[in-house]
Amino acid sequence: MSKSHSLELTPIGIIHSLYKNMGDVPHQGYKSEEISQIEVFKEFEEGLKDIEGFSHIIVIYWFHKSRGYHLLVKTPWDESLHGLFTTRSPHRPCPLGLTVAELVAKEKNVLKVKGLDAIDGTPLLDIKPYVPSIDKKSVVKPGWFEGRLGKGRS
Amino acid sequence: MSKSHSLELTPIGIIHSLYKNMGDVPHQGYKSEEISQIEVFKEFEEGLKDIEGFSHIIVIYWFHKSRGYHLLVKTPWDESLHGLFTTRSPHRPCPLGLTVAELVAKEKNVLKVKGLDAIDGTPLLDIKPYVPSIDKKSVVKPGWFEGRLGKGRS
Repeated sequence: MSKSHSLELTPIGIIHSLYKNMGDVPHQGYKSEEISQIEVFKEFEEGLKDIEGFSHIIVIYWFHKSRGYHLLVKTPWDESLHGLFTTRSPHRPCPLGLTVAELVAKEKNVLKVKGLDAIDGTPLLDIKPYVPSIDKKSVVKPGWFEGRLGKGRS
Repeated sequence: MSKSHSLELTPIGIIHSLYKNMGDVPHQGYKSEEISQIEVFKEFEEGLKDIEGFSHIIVIYWFHKSRGYHLLVKTPWDESLHGLFTTRSPHRPCPLGLTVAELVAKEKNVLKVKGLDAIDGTPLLDIKPYVPSIDKKSVVKPGWFEGRLGKGRS
């Protein structure tokens, strides 16, 4: 693979939410009770079969309002500069967003979820099942986040 | 956003592993003790600052050997057809892979990790910190995976 080779993605859906701009998304949106709607385009609907059995799904999306990035960033939680890849900033070389959301309901090709901190109109790239034995880690050092998430602005 | 609009990504690194082909990756590679090396290209190295403090990282990569997909798929765990988006199959409309890996060591721009089930040469797209208060869910219904992961071929 050449380093300069670029890869192409085509969205499989679109996210509808109450957050109209990046500034509207709370820093701890994953705690929010707001319901977002994930519209999976009709042609992919069959791929949602059995999804009602899952309480949580991993949603991967495109930070479409992201413009450029810095490798060292300041977060809402402290005054230090942290490496970009230790933060959840939307401004990244590959602007991919990821949230583990709670699946509340499915209506045909639309999933209603809680805790998805994506803004309205966000292109949906993928949905994966959240499987505790694969995705949930027990002994975890959370780096500079340690003790900080209670101090956020939201 | 037009449905046909496609999005472009440029990899930020490359994954070196002992798995040379898709068939070499165990179905429960996330349990493996094998060490993989994530080479983050030099120009992004500064973005890894502070990452040593994290025991686990979320690695997002490109399933570069994936060719096409089916919306209903058979998995190694049972005989039923499941919706693609309830599986972790690498054959997806947007071939994005995701693993929560254990960070064992960092040497300059290279991260040594355990539990990363990506094959050698996989393009790296993003690294995010695994933060339990954001990513770890406690009350979880794991859909059709319930009771099945012990039955895998690996």
